[in-house]
Amino acid sequence: MGKSRLEAFSDGVIAILITIMVLDLKVPEGVQFRSLIPLIPLLLNYALSFLYLAIYWNNHHHLLHTCDRVTGAILWANMHLLFWLSLIPVTTAWMSENHREAAPSVLYGVDLLLAAIAYFMLEQRIVASQGSGSLLKRAIGRDLKGKASPILYLVGIGAAFRSPALSQAVYVLVALLWLVPDRRIESVLSSAHE
Amino acid sequence: MGKSRLEAFSDGVIAILITIMVLDLKVPEGVQFRSLIPLIPLLLNYALSFLYLAIYWNNHHHLLHTCDRVTGAILWANMHLLFWLSLIPVTTAWMSENHREAAPSVLYGVDLLLAAIAYFMLEQRIVASQGSGSLLKRAIGRDLKGKASPILYLVGIGAAFRSPALSQAVYVLVALLWLVPDRRIESVLSSAHE
Amino acid sequence: MGKSRLEAFSDGVIAILITIMVLDLKVPEGVQFRSLIPLIPLLLNYALSFLYLAIYWNNHHHLLHTCDRVTGAILWANMHLLFWLSLIPVTTAWMSENHREAAPSVLYGVDLLLAAIAYFMLEQRIVASQGSGSLLKRAIGRDLKGKASPILYLVGIGAAFRSPALSQAVYVLVALLWLVPDRRIESVLSSAHE
Amino acid sequence: MGKSRLEAFSDGVIAILITIMVLDLKVPEGVQFRSLIPLIPLLLNYALSFLYLAIYWNNHHHLLHTCDRVTGAILWANMHLLFWLSLIPVTTAWMSENHREAAPSVLYGVDLLLAAIAYFMLEQRIVASQGSGSLLKRAIGRDLKGKASPILYLVGIGAAFRSPALSQAVYVLVALLWLVPDRRIESVLSSAHE
Repeated sequence: MGKSRLEAFSDGVIAILITIMVLDLKVPEGVQFRSLIPLIPLLLNYALSFLYLAIYWNNHHHLLHTCDRVTGAILWANMHLLFWLSLIPVTTAWMSENHREAAPSVLYGVDLLLAAIAYFMLEQRIVASQGSGSLLKRAIGRDLKGKASPILYLVGIGAAFRSPALSQAVYVLVALLWLVPDRRIESVLSSAHE
Repeated sequence: MGKSRLEAFSDGVIAILITIMVLDLKVPEGVQFRSLIPLIPLLLNYALSFLYLAIYWNNHHHLLHTCDRVTGAILWANMHLLFWLSLIPVTTAWMSENHREAAPSVLYGVDLLLAAIAYFMLEQRIVASQGSGSLLKRAIGRDLKGKASPILYLVGIGAAFRSPALSQAVYVLVALLWLVPDRRIESVLSSAHE
Repeated sequence: MGKSRLEAFSDGVIAILITIMVLDLKVPEGVQFRSLIPLIPLLLNYALSFLYLAIYWNNHHHLLHTCDRVTGAILWANMHLLFWLSLIPVTTAWMSENHREAAPSVLYGVDLLLAAIAYFMLEQRIVASQGSGSLLKRAIGRDLKGKASPILYLVGIGAAFRSPALSQAVYVLVALLWLVPDRRIESVLSSAHE
Repeated sequence: MGKSRLEAFSDGVIAILITIMVLDLKVPEGVQFRSLIPLIPLLLNYALSFLYLAIYWNNHHHLLHTCDRVTGAILWANMHLLFWLSLIPVTTAWMSENHREAAPSVLYGVDLLLAAIAYFMLEQRIVASQGSGSLLKRAIGRDLKGKASPILYLVGIGAAFRSPALSQAVYVLVALLWLVPDRRIESVLSSAHE
């Protein structure tokens, strides 16, 4: 199976997810500027999830770029990742409407954690398919960011029980960590092409 | 007509279907962890339909891979398949909100059955377009899975009148049967390329 | 401008339109088989609009196939067509919920009529861009179907004031007329390639 | 990173945005022709936002056409643009339901302004990536339209406090200014290819 159709399908799903979240941004009740105030936490949460999906799209792009051959295992690992990403709109909606409650912030973190694990599993499947000289394996290296993220999600989940605001701050922090595209993959790839 | 635009259109429709189902996963009522409990059957049904659409996407990809030329008959057989798939979000929503009732589980099975028949008809159209030495015909062979699925859907539909839970278990079973991509097509294709 | 991105954008819009219509297929109220009865007219109308959008997608594909160069005029004529197509979900929803009333059937026909006019204008723009030896112009020929459709839509709109059912029958008739892909374009194209 | 996947993702997001706006076009309440009257402002606002998104899609296409290499900065500038565009459906819905109120018309203008700034920043990123002989820089030239638009949006925002109708007229005017695709880029590109 060529990877282009898998890329196109994944792009389609992520593009739809990033866009349908806007359907949960309800039209303000009232016609005054102050009607916008209760929407501010919703907008910020929307922006955070938009950022996460953009990061996943970007890293997913780099990941598949190293992959030559799509096996069945890679295909289903990819579907598994898309499944957890597909829940982001609903976990975002719950958290943004109840941003001072523990459970919604926990659930949001659990979804991010499961997506991160699915991403890691996809990465491993691609490395396995490439054999011992795996380009991706060299590119990832020690993968500090990849290992730190699940730990930080766990910290965020734990923090939610004490302070949902702190929990959300942790999720923002992880997003900022990933905002920079993965230069490691880029640099190994460009040296491989030399 | 080139097949790439037909593939892209079908991918687009399936990617949208798999994603808009999440719009039926209502935000929990309440802000406690226990507010999530009534959502568990919805989530499981969502996961099942996600899996079915992913399987259709995957098998559809293999199917069109064997097809060189898109005739009008193939195009309309494909639209027919997309029509029944497009009803999956609404049949899923009805079943997941009433997972202990007979009628919703029957309807879900009927939709799966009609999609399976549409898939079979599409397969036949492609075989017919390829003439006597059809690559796809050789690839499908006796097609045990393809023949077993409609029978199992009928079993699931019948079981729904007695036990919706049993019915849903049958639908899960069929999905698991198909989870493995169709190695028959892959193996014939790879030997054809040798 | 290359036509491939215009094709991809149009495909995307039509794929989304054909799929979001399913969001108007409300989940049945009740859990009995008889709860499905009030949904039958909705389903039939959904199927009709699905068919129309599939026909437009198919004919649009053939139309752009003859087009080498996308001018600004072609681009905006295409957007104009997509605009009227984008209203099909809402005109369908109104008609299907009120299939025995005049106004909704009139509005549905008006939308189809405006889409047909937009399609005709797009066709003319492509012919104009190709100059005197236009491949498309030869392909269309006298274009009986293209000329008959707006007249039939007008008949359907007029009939709606007397009998919405008759009006809807006319709309079904036009769809059936177009169900067959446009062999004229295919045959001229294939002779041009010889 | 190749630009084709970035184009495809952006096209996908814009195609979804332009289409999901139709979900806010509520089905008329009532079954008479006069039930359509309250929908007229909604339809006009929908058409305006459809036009804006079509213009962005078109100009975005021309912009990326001049771009050879997608850097991380370009990618995130593009996501930033898509973010503000993604809010157009909700700002449109608020304005169209309250077209005689100040705040909704202000918010619509603010969103357009932020999208215009994001577009300008994306343009600058591409120019910067191309170095001193930037093809895009020559193509844009003094960029009168690009500089006039934000000023006109500010005029529209200011006007909204006095007259929402005047404000909306300004937004229509800017759209009409941009309706013509950017011939400057086309002409420099075609001379560059000579």
